[in-house]
Amino acid sequence: MIESKLRQTSSLIDSIIKNCLNEADIVYRAAYHLPSHGGKRLRPFLVIKSCELVGGNFEKAIFTAAAVELLHNFTLIHDDIMDNDSLRRGIPTVHTLWGIPMGILAGDMLFAKAFQVLLSSPNVNYDCLIKAAKIMADATVTICEGQSLDMAFEARIDVSEEEYLTMIYKKTGALFKACAEIGGLIGGGDETTIELLGRYGGNLGIGFQIFDDYLGIFSREEVLGKPIGSDIREGKKTLIVIKALSSKLREDILRILGKKNISDQEIRKLIDGIKQEGIDEYTLDKAKRYIKMAIDSIAKFPESEAKYDLIELANYAISRVK
Amino acid sequence: MIESKLRQTSSLIDSIIKNCLNEADIVYRAAYHLPSHGGKRLRPFLVIKSCELVGGNFEKAIFTAAAVELLHNFTLIHDDIMDNDSLRRGIPTVHTLWGIPMGILAGDMLFAKAFQVLLSSPNVNYDCLIKAAKIMADATVTICEGQSLDMAFEARIDVSEEEYLTMIYKKTGALFKACAEIGGLIGGGDETTIELLGRYGGNLGIGFQIFDDYLGIFSREEVLGKPIGSDIREGKKTLIVIKALSSKLREDILRILGKKNISDQEIRKLIDGIKQEGIDEYTLDKAKRYIKMAIDSIAKFPESEAKYDLIELANYAISRVK
Repeated sequence: MIESKLRQTSSLIDSIIKNCLNEADIVYRAAYHLPSHGGKRLRPFLVIKSCELVGGNFEKAIFTAAAVELLHNFTLIHDDIMDNDSLRRGIPTVHTLWGIPMGILAGDMLFAKAFQVLLSSPNVNYDCLIKAAKIMADATVTICEGQSLDMAFEARIDVSEEEYLTMIYKKTGALFKACAEIGGLIGGGDETTIELLGRYGGNLGIGFQIFDDYLGIFSREEVLGKPIGSDIREGKKTLIVIKALSSKLREDILRILGKKNISDQEIRKLIDGIKQEGIDEYTLDKAKRYIKMAIDSIAKFPESEAKYDLIELANYAISRVK
Repeated sequence: MIESKLRQTSSLIDSIIKNCLNEADIVYRAAYHLPSHGGKRLRPFLVIKSCELVGGNFEKAIFTAAAVELLHNFTLIHDDIMDNDSLRRGIPTVHTLWGIPMGILAGDMLFAKAFQVLLSSPNVNYDCLIKAAKIMADATVTICEGQSLDMAFEARIDVSEEEYLTMIYKKTGALFKACAEIGGLIGGGDETTIELLGRYGGNLGIGFQIFDDYLGIFSREEVLGKPIGSDIREGKKTLIVIKALSSKLREDILRILGKKNISDQEIRKLIDGIKQEGIDEYTLDKAKRYIKMAIDSIAKFPESEAKYDLIELANYAISRVK
């Protein structure tokens, strides 16, 4: 159900993304690689549904929806270089195919295109457009701060759950929050409405990311499109890792954390231990709590299809298989 | 004379740059490294003087001036990674000090900050601000295209002078053009005026870049802040290299072009040959022609201090020592 609605969003924004990257030069081909190979389009969906929730016409939000997707793909391409990841969405990452310099440049291009596309939104008044552009710039600054924390945490083994939550709020929650706010803004929502939507988006993003880290351990490679346990191999401090570090698994995980060449067997053994300790349940429960907070944030809005879709989106964030 | 005026610009915009990067996290320190260590501030100067030329108050243009400098520094940080350069402005490059991942992230942060700062310009009406943001986004797209060409040219030995000129227009000219247009726009210039200013900026940028490539060969390392001949070692197709490839130096330059470990002695020998072939004069002459075109573009503006400054800036672009 939600999948078919996400596909509808995809059909709305994909032509904008394609058109703005439809050039022969290699940098355009490299920039188009990731957005043209799947992606769930959750963020543009969030922009569009937030716009509709406040009574706006979704057509006004299509360009900003495409813009946030471009921005998201820029961060993924650069993250993959920084994290040295060679697979995403089941295909080789941009820098794996074209090299690190072109990966950097393709990301930069998507970043520039994100602003170009946002600023060319038709039928959005200037006041709104500037606010939307500011929200997108602010979110990008926050994402960079989040990525910096994520990298700093790799070198540490004493990261607290609170620090983790701050990091994922910045790295993931901030853009979800921005999407909901931009949608509400363009739809004509007032300040209180936009604030509630922002709260929905921020909590959704945190819940989504906790569940994403969960899938990175408990999904299967052929479903996920990337190796299981890569977070552990990279020394990432996910909630699962943080909890394992304060459990009787501490010595086991310390032995393999951040070691690129750990065997799949050792990863599997650790995952069994994580389940026995109930850390999988703890993590799922935590994700559910943020999703509940998200849904609660929009509880007072009158019933509508958009509200229903946003609730469904929130539930999907912690029930998807990839 | 012009140097003291550039320092005045620096004093106007440096506090904005410092304030927007004044955070403890490592990504802010990495992002502030390059803009806090010199730089001529030509681009902000160009914004401010273009604003004044059309009768605007320079104070309205300060934030956009700081924004283009942030954007410029973002491109430098990423270029240094892509080109594997370890020195700039006489100091180690960002990725040399903090590693490639943090170099990428510091550049991304400056890019985001550029839009944040531009969009927070006080006393600029919304129409103007959106146009300025669009010009900056468009210029960034063009810069990425130029960098892609620059990299593609490294693998080729048949790059024409015309292709070189297209590449440097995109890589350098486009941002100078954008600066002049943004300044004219914020100063309240009409369409024709802004177009003339854009032509001034574009030609200034091309002349500046030709002379920059000239300095890369004919300056001295201790003045330039980076090694002499690094363009040759990296296989860059500068005008000098392109001309040498179609002279009797062809075999000599083919032997060393793109080889990182060529000795200083071999570089010096080639430079002597380049001089004997008169390629230094040819290059200088070409730079002068673009600078003349730049100055001609603003010839019809009434005399003013700003006009005088812009003419001086153009002449400085091809007479500076670094």
